[in-house]
Amino acid sequence: MSGTRATFPAPIVEARKWIDGVTFSADRPLINVSQAAPVDPPPEPLRQAMADAILTNPDAHLYGPVLGLTPLREALAERTGRIYGGAVTSDQVCITSGCNEAFAAAMTTLCAEGDEVLLPTPWYFNHKMWLDMTGIGAVPLPTGDDLLPDPVDAAARITDRTRAIVLITPNNPGGVEYPAALLSAFRDLARAKGIALVVDETYRDFHAAPGAPHDLFRDPDWDDTLIHLYSFSKSYRLTGHRVGAMIASPARLAEAEKFLDTVTICPAQVGQIAALWGMQNLDQWLAGERDEILARRKAIADGFAPLAAKGWTLKGLGAYFAYVEHPFDTPSDVLAQNLVHSAGLLCLPATMFYPSGAPEAAKGLRIAFANLDVDGIGDMYRRLDAL
Amino acid sequence: MSGTRATFPAPIVEARKWIDGVTFSADRPLINVSQAAPVDPPPEPLRQAMADAILTNPDAHLYGPVLGLTPLREALAERTGRIYGGAVTSDQVCITSGCNEAFAAAMTTLCAEGDEVLLPTPWYFNHKMWLDMTGIGAVPLPTGDDLLPDPVDAAARITDRTRAIVLITPNNPGGVEYPAALLSAFRDLARAKGIALVVDETYRDFHAAPGAPHDLFRDPDWDDTLIHLYSFSKSYRLTGHRVGAMIASPARLAEAEKFLDTVTICPAQVGQIAALWGMQNLDQWLAGERDEILARRKAIADGFAPLAAKGWTLKGLGAYFAYVEHPFDTPSDVLAQNLVHSAGLLCLPATMFYPSGAPEAAKGLRIAFANLDVDGIGDMYRRLDAL
Repeated sequence: MSGTRATFPAPIVEARKWIDGVTFSADRPLINVSQAAPVDPPPEPLRQAMADAILTNPDAHLYGPVLGLTPLREALAERTGRIYGGAVTSDQVCITSGCNEAFAAAMTTLCAEGDEVLLPTPWYFNHKMWLDMTGIGAVPLPTGDDLLPDPVDAAARITDRTRAIVLITPNNPGGVEYPAALLSAFRDLARAKGIALVVDETYRDFHAAPGAPHDLFRDPDWDDTLIHLYSFSKSYRLTGHRVGAMIASPARLAEAEKFLDTVTICPAQVGQIAALWGMQNLDQWLAGERDEILARRKAIADGFAPLAAKGWTLKGLGAYFAYVEHPFDTPSDVLAQNLVHSAGLLCLPATMFYPSGAPEAAKGLRIAFANLDVDGIGDMYRRLDAL
Repeated sequence: MSGTRATFPAPIVEARKWIDGVTFSADRPLINVSQAAPVDPPPEPLRQAMADAILTNPDAHLYGPVLGLTPLREALAERTGRIYGGAVTSDQVCITSGCNEAFAAAMTTLCAEGDEVLLPTPWYFNHKMWLDMTGIGAVPLPTGDDLLPDPVDAAARITDRTRAIVLITPNNPGGVEYPAALLSAFRDLARAKGIALVVDETYRDFHAAPGAPHDLFRDPDWDDTLIHLYSFSKSYRLTGHRVGAMIASPARLAEAEKFLDTVTICPAQVGQIAALWGMQNLDQWLAGERDEILARRKAIADGFAPLAAKGWTLKGLGAYFAYVEHPFDTPSDVLAQNLVHSAGLLCLPATMFYPSGAPEAAKGLRIAFANLDVDGIGDMYRRLDAL
């Protein structure tokens, strides 16, 4: 079983249908916390740099290398090495048309139909959808109350068809930041089993820890096991330009090149030019963005008490996401649709992050809070408190 | 068998390696006819429109709809209906990150692993690569001396696993423009067998015929069988912006939406804005581009006699491509690598367009002549004549 009929409709698209034709009053506008996406354009100097490239750089309009622009690969290699305190070279970096494509490419290098990949639950729906469409088994790896997976439990689920363990940190949808020691333990497990450890760090730049979020790149042999995925979309507000990255062994990137050439030929040039300019010029600005997200995160944590008193649970919090459990008997997929009307709120139910029929899914909701300022978070909480 | 290991390295990438480290003298610079890609940027007013969008339109930087911007879908629906004299609505149009992604999405809606698709040979390598990586059987459909496939022959190759016939017109790599009656015959065959007819018209805007290249859209029920693929890349010199399209039934596009959401989330906005502006403002300019390509095509045909006298054959000619057969005993894959040194010429051998070991592949070469002006074509011919 593979192909689009083997998977479900895109959750973001489905959720958008829930608000089609619904009117929201001026005194209670829609609060949309369904998608993790900046709503403002990139800072003006970056937009100017992009416009300059459009007008003066002919290469901005032409096919580029399948694996991305060399200066961008070099800059991301240098930056990754610096952040994590390890050695990463430009031939271990490729640029992709967004991080989703990096995941799809990585999986296609690792798996054939019938192979298996471990995904902690709640999982990221697009990961599950890709595996469905290519006939790869997504093996759910349950997490505890802290939303962290257990390497011992994972080891028991590895079969001779398992090709990879996929971890997302900070997590989507759970928000939780995986401890460095846990990531190392998963790396050790993957290496011992001869499978890949895929670590998706799309939200890395909004991690609460001040230093390196893990030690994986300090291992001089990291690229025998680790495949690291990254996105420029959230960091520099480039969601509309489609630019992500995969960091892995040169041999794996040579395999990924087949996929990337066949699907998109090359990443869009303007996004690549913007990503490079951002890394060269926006560190200070990005630090401010992170501070703001961390302030919003604090507002989510600080304001939760009244909901907790009514039986809500804040299970995970970090980067763009809060993952909560509600106290109602209504299952989350019905509740989420009701919330459009009862609270003027659009968020995604946990049914979109779990295997069909999983009982844990009935309670969970993902709140992509990053687009709400502190006042907006207060407003959201008041609406939920009034239910 | 699926995954990247089930297919071969990307031919364009492989061919580029043949010129790595090779120096070409100033009096005999490299003639690169390996890739069908404009080498100049888009016209200045289009670049200005893109820069203006970057600076003034916040949406140019944000996620857009998975299936593409509504005004672009509307404009392409209207234009397609006008060109072909049929009825096409915007909900039958989606925008993709280039035409390769449109093909991958279409295949994923049609096929599961083990299914089969008919591809006339010589085939477009990225089509074959996609089918390999997803475990779909690419069934070669031989063509005659005119490089046209035969519907009767095709019918005999259809099994209960066949899901589609894929035709490219004007053809890549063959150049040949499929007659309208042949396309209708294939549509009738596909409909009778209950399978899809996929028609890739990436090079449509450079077709030599002045009117509609086929009647397929005049059929009021076209979308029960036809899937049409298109690209803005060549027409408006937007290869670096990744913007293509699929035109099919709304139900098929709803399936494709799963794939597109999972792989790239949305097409890059700047490319979409440029494609729309191009359709609104560049008809006259595009007509001039077409005239120039047709002049180059004429130069290819007119100058071929000396090569023909030496045993070369011009088998196909149209849009960006000439497909020739050489008179040497050396197989085409070796010859193409030798030509880098003996003629300062980079072109792709037919081995890249045929199943491994196919005897027809030993003679063929694809010449992507569109980037050579008439003088450049003369230069290329002189070099080949001197071999």
